[in-house]
Amino acid sequence: MLTAELLKRLDAKEQRIIDIRRHLHEHPELSFEEEKTAAYIEDFYKGVAVDSVETNVGGHRGIVVTIKGEKSGKTIAVRADFDALPIQEETDLPFASKTKGVMHACGHDGHTAYMLVLAETLAEMKKQLAGTIKVIHQPAEEMPPGGAIGMIRAGVLDDVSAVFGIHVMSTMEAGKIFYRSGNTQTGRARFKLHIQGKGGHGSSPHMANDAIVAASSFVMNCQTIISRRMDPFDTAVVTIGSFDGKGQFNVIKDAVALEGDVRTMSQESRELVEAQVRQFAEGLETSFGVQATLEYANDYPVLYNDPEITGQVRQAIEEANIPEVTAVEEVAPQPPSEDFAYYLEEKPGCFFYVGAKPLGKEAYPHHHPKFEIDEKSLLISAKAMAAVAADFCREKKDD
Amino acid sequence: MLTAELLKRLDAKEQRIIDIRRHLHEHPELSFEEEKTAAYIEDFYKGVAVDSVETNVGGHRGIVVTIKGEKSGKTIAVRADFDALPIQEETDLPFASKTKGVMHACGHDGHTAYMLVLAETLAEMKKQLAGTIKVIHQPAEEMPPGGAIGMIRAGVLDDVSAVFGIHVMSTMEAGKIFYRSGNTQTGRARFKLHIQGKGGHGSSPHMANDAIVAASSFVMNCQTIISRRMDPFDTAVVTIGSFDGKGQFNVIKDAVALEGDVRTMSQESRELVEAQVRQFAEGLETSFGVQATLEYANDYPVLYNDPEITGQVRQAIEEANIPEVTAVEEVAPQPPSEDFAYYLEEKPGCFFYVGAKPLGKEAYPHHHPKFEIDEKSLLISAKAMAAVAADFCREKKDD
Amino acid sequence: MLTAELLKRLDAKEQRIIDIRRHLHEHPELSFEEEKTAAYIEDFYKGVAVDSVETNVGGHRGIVVTIKGEKSGKTIAVRADFDALPIQEETDLPFASKTKGVMHACGHDGHTAYMLVLAETLAEMKKQLAGTIKVIHQPAEEMPPGGAIGMIRAGVLDDVSAVFGIHVMSTMEAGKIFYRSGNTQTGRARFKLHIQGKGGHGSSPHMANDAIVAASSFVMNCQTIISRRMDPFDTAVVTIGSFDGKGQFNVIKDAVALEGDVRTMSQESRELVEAQVRQFAEGLETSFGVQATLEYANDYPVLYNDPEITGQVRQAIEEANIPEVTAVEEVAPQPPSEDFAYYLEEKPGCFFYVGAKPLGKEAYPHHHPKFEIDEKSLLISAKAMAAVAADFCREKKDD
Amino acid sequence: MLTAELLKRLDAKEQRIIDIRRHLHEHPELSFEEEKTAAYIEDFYKGVAVDSVETNVGGHRGIVVTIKGEKSGKTIAVRADFDALPIQEETDLPFASKTKGVMHACGHDGHTAYMLVLAETLAEMKKQLAGTIKVIHQPAEEMPPGGAIGMIRAGVLDDVSAVFGIHVMSTMEAGKIFYRSGNTQTGRARFKLHIQGKGGHGSSPHMANDAIVAASSFVMNCQTIISRRMDPFDTAVVTIGSFDGKGQFNVIKDAVALEGDVRTMSQESRELVEAQVRQFAEGLETSFGVQATLEYANDYPVLYNDPEITGQVRQAIEEANIPEVTAVEEVAPQPPSEDFAYYLEEKPGCFFYVGAKPLGKEAYPHHHPKFEIDEKSLLISAKAMAAVAADFCREKKDD
Repeated sequence: MLTAELLKRLDAKEQRIIDIRRHLHEHPELSFEEEKTAAYIEDFYKGVAVDSVETNVGGHRGIVVTIKGEKSGKTIAVRADFDALPIQEETDLPFASKTKGVMHACGHDGHTAYMLVLAETLAEMKKQLAGTIKVIHQPAEEMPPGGAIGMIRAGVLDDVSAVFGIHVMSTMEAGKIFYRSGNTQTGRARFKLHIQGKGGHGSSPHMANDAIVAASSFVMNCQTIISRRMDPFDTAVVTIGSFDGKGQFNVIKDAVALEGDVRTMSQESRELVEAQVRQFAEGLETSFGVQATLEYANDYPVLYNDPEITGQVRQAIEEANIPEVTAVEEVAPQPPSEDFAYYLEEKPGCFFYVGAKPLGKEAYPHHHPKFEIDEKSLLISAKAMAAVAADFCREKKDD
Repeated sequence: MLTAELLKRLDAKEQRIIDIRRHLHEHPELSFEEEKTAAYIEDFYKGVAVDSVETNVGGHRGIVVTIKGEKSGKTIAVRADFDALPIQEETDLPFASKTKGVMHACGHDGHTAYMLVLAETLAEMKKQLAGTIKVIHQPAEEMPPGGAIGMIRAGVLDDVSAVFGIHVMSTMEAGKIFYRSGNTQTGRARFKLHIQGKGGHGSSPHMANDAIVAASSFVMNCQTIISRRMDPFDTAVVTIGSFDGKGQFNVIKDAVALEGDVRTMSQESRELVEAQVRQFAEGLETSFGVQATLEYANDYPVLYNDPEITGQVRQAIEEANIPEVTAVEEVAPQPPSEDFAYYLEEKPGCFFYVGAKPLGKEAYPHHHPKFEIDEKSLLISAKAMAAVAADFCREKKDD
Repeated sequence: MLTAELLKRLDAKEQRIIDIRRHLHEHPELSFEEEKTAAYIEDFYKGVAVDSVETNVGGHRGIVVTIKGEKSGKTIAVRADFDALPIQEETDLPFASKTKGVMHACGHDGHTAYMLVLAETLAEMKKQLAGTIKVIHQPAEEMPPGGAIGMIRAGVLDDVSAVFGIHVMSTMEAGKIFYRSGNTQTGRARFKLHIQGKGGHGSSPHMANDAIVAASSFVMNCQTIISRRMDPFDTAVVTIGSFDGKGQFNVIKDAVALEGDVRTMSQESRELVEAQVRQFAEGLETSFGVQATLEYANDYPVLYNDPEITGQVRQAIEEANIPEVTAVEEVAPQPPSEDFAYYLEEKPGCFFYVGAKPLGKEAYPHHHPKFEIDEKSLLISAKAMAAVAADFCREKKDD
Repeated sequence: MLTAELLKRLDAKEQRIIDIRRHLHEHPELSFEEEKTAAYIEDFYKGVAVDSVETNVGGHRGIVVTIKGEKSGKTIAVRADFDALPIQEETDLPFASKTKGVMHACGHDGHTAYMLVLAETLAEMKKQLAGTIKVIHQPAEEMPPGGAIGMIRAGVLDDVSAVFGIHVMSTMEAGKIFYRSGNTQTGRARFKLHIQGKGGHGSSPHMANDAIVAASSFVMNCQTIISRRMDPFDTAVVTIGSFDGKGQFNVIKDAVALEGDVRTMSQESRELVEAQVRQFAEGLETSFGVQATLEYANDYPVLYNDPEITGQVRQAIEEANIPEVTAVEEVAPQPPSEDFAYYLEEKPGCFFYVGAKPLGKEAYPHHHPKFEIDEKSLLISAKAMAAVAADFCREKKDD
């Protein structure tokens, strides 16, 4: 009944969700610089019957809103991120970004929009809620170290028993909701390797120490991490995306800077790849007599959805019978990394996906200048998260 | 007698040689842009009793001066180059370059200075000369395709039986003259390889085609040209001096541009290296499915000194008993390339070296911002070339 | 009721299953040479009330036994393999192999034993069976091209609507049954690459063409198939297990023979790996001027369990309430390849696993000279397959 | 006069030289096993008026014969080696090897034959000799560590001021004598690298450590020694002639054994190559976590002919006006290594070449089963060495 009432109320507010999203879309802000967006969110809650609005949480304008049900129950957290990307928008939407070079090309505008209206609606229903819902409005998901760490350090999860998040997906069919249990999105590391050889005239290699040759050997060696060190049934990627060795054709290059990106789907492979990259860097020094200075930084961890909670999420959404939802389906693991994974390292929970592929249009991927979403995904997001929240915060006779 | 007289007259003109050199040193001009230098040379010959002064030879202000001996004999050519380099001088010489970023850092100012005064002196001695001497003032030695080709196409060597040149050497002991017979300076080629793969997200290698990996494989393969294809008793160098693959750490690089430098000491190895670089470029396409576009250009050929003429040069200089010359020695092959090699492809001859290491100072190599020469090498150059010219243009009873 | 009766009857026959297995274990025969084993199987069916026993099916002593239920229904096939391996047994079992160098080190003795007794028991119950069960006793699973192809060509699956098989697993907990839906065991390919260069004296590389260097480059290139061409969420392995390049230390090697093994988990990757290996072989010729002769043979395909049928298998086993079965669990994909995959290319079905880890002993992997199984897995296999057969061949009111 | 008399006497003995050579050719013995050959040499000197014959010098049947001139002068040494090779002769010479699998395929039979007759002839002329000649009959040139080391340790060079040797050359024109000053034949090293990884099933690379991949990386790295570490005007070769990695196609190889051969033309490059091979072996351990066990042994050093003495040798031979000698020419450096280099590490001297290419026949290289020499090279060898010995042991008015 609670769920049904929430869905009904949300139906009436769909246009408001869309309006908010469009406003945010027009005014995107980069990670760690989200001043106006944070102010907008704060503003929204004025007059809304939530129990508290904490601002500037976690050092970067994070906002935590608490909605206490009048019945006792668990405390859960729901999270929406609100930062944009350094991309020049190339859509012809009437509400396209008004800020040059900045764009909501990942849908965080939509996340924030549905979440605001959902929070308001949950607050309206406090009497029937058994438990507490903390709404986390998080900045800076797009840029490591990410905004989640700050929120966690500020204690937002301390009293929480489960945490939930949604991502709208421009490449997944609108109307569908997707979930995965266990390791779901990759963990990520990033490294820089500075290889210092010795420059010299192109005709006198013996007087120099060619950094380009040493770096090329490193690149080839790195291929064996995936081909020979990884469990073939696990997943990892090592990409050296930058080989900065521009020089004069006839001068032996003194130094090369490499930059690499690592994706893994388990803690084991995360450690294994790091160890092996370190070994290859050290081996370069031994083999080629160059100086190899490695900076290796793990950032977002593997995103792990608790299997039991994920099963409950799926069931709650299915049982909610949301008319706009055509299917709830298991999805393959997702290559991108996501700082929601930090919350899930602290508390069990589930991060799931709402299809948002634009109808009758080409679906541009996230981070593309022509990225668009089907806005009906916003109401669906609100309803799905409402169903989840209601399910986790209902009176359970048999608990 | 002719030689002795030449040496005596040159002794009296040493200061003039030095003055001319210092003037030129103060006013360096880049290859193919040597306007004022050419005008200066032209000017010098006004009032000098040479037989002809042709200007603008070879399309780039080359100057050819003809001195006809009154007795019959062979025609020989002697060449001095007059261009400077795009280097900011860092010496504290009183006559340091007055042109920002341009410097006579290779001694061509000295070549021109000694040659002007030598030409004047030879012209004074026409009565005793048996044969004709063509003085080639050549622009643009430093920049491929070089000035020599134009001079040759203009026909300067057509009636010539032998051709000679000198390089002053800041790293070789002043007072000594050095020669080598056969292949003496390397030939050179230069290549650019554009490798076009396909960019993509760092976590999705299967959707992309990593140009950095393909390029690294090419670099490693190229090492085998020297290690496995070359005759170990021949000499060649392949340097990839530029690996332009800078990008985002987490984006698979779509394209890489490599630039390489090739040095060889024989026509065989010149052809072999080119063929093998072409094979590896083509093999990249086959192996990695990238597009590999190769521009490969041979420029200066291997400099080959005719053994017989080189022997004669050595003998002529030794027999001249030049007081300033302490030794005439064979020297190892020289890594740099030199466009005098084009003349030697057309006519037999000899390119030799005059030691010019500054006394009691650090000897900076050619092309260094602190490059200096011992100016006594200028008189020695004039005298040595005088001895050679006199020897080749003397009446030979027994010929 | 049918299932319950089957289980009850099988309980009474456990010792017979064990005796048969031990007899077969003592008398192992290699793939394609299984004369006595086939005769033993044939012999077993004398006096058993099956409907037909076809021998010599598929060219290699395969046996197909048909059991027709008296009620109408589907036709299904169940398969047990019966070949052994060229391994010298190192157990101290009283029934260890009596044939030197040949051993049932993969459990096919057990497969045959449970299947014979199950077939007999099903034949006893024909009255209650709705449908037909074809029992496939298959030779030569261990050696490509495998015995399955012959059986299929002989038409054993023509009238079959689903096909089932079991593997006992020495490394999985006894008492448990394991299943997986979709791609479950790897497909396999094998290749040989003969690289013909040109021999020569170690001191004269330019007169030779070093096959070891070309082969090493190929090995390094092959690492990029897995690291750069594969979808990181798919699975593939390329192993070069043999690099036959033994020679004299001071003689450049003329030829090298490589042998490789490929595992894939999808048809896409199967094709992709083959294409890329072919490209690298061709690229060797282009790059190094060697002759590269590749033999590439795909053998066992990816084993694909039909999701719906696999779900039904799981349910049937769970509902059978087999007392010895402690759990029915999903299992990770399995690296080995299995020629049962050929049946599943033709017809939907399910190949599943029965835990057989010996209690209180070290669990040696399959193909190990000390391989052993917990014999209680045999009764469990018989019962599990009985449950599956009964479920697929029962009267269904609602079908 | 001394020289002229020596030549005259040698003319008369040409057939004896040839006969001795043919006898030795029929009875070849392997390095360190030359019993009968040593006895034959000893026997030859019975009745010859030499001053002493020491046998069993250096531990392996080396023989040192001393001829003291009656006038005072320097002591010089001349060396001839007498071992054969493990090669099955394939010529159809009437005096072909009678020992299966052993052949004088390098001309040491000829070296010994000319030297015996020359020694006898020098002994006849003692009155006119000013100085002492030590004839070194050396075993085991073909097999490291070689016979020279033992002779040197026994002190044969202690009182010697210069040492000389000749090699007849089947590939150089008969009638000509060839010399080279400075570094003339390569030094040699040999290495074995055992790479211990960890075996495993082809489908599970993460459980293993692939020795073939590590070894291939080592092979590729080694190419950079020649391409990037060597002075391009120096000479070196690194050949990995053996890559022993034969295994099962589907089993990850646990261990690989590499064997390599190194040639260098200078002490610097000798040390540099060794250091770099050691670095790459150590780097393999760091990079790939394998165990890399390297045995690296330098054997014959670079053969260095003293320039002054070489000049004197050339002059002595030219001035001897040997009628059979058509030219005395400088020759390129020679790739093979030769243990005469050890003598030249101790004392100055010259090792030179006598052309022996068979007239009107194909010239098979040394160590070929069809190796033959033009026997006129034997008299020329005797005369050339006679001229050298006479020159170094004549009275010098101006010394």
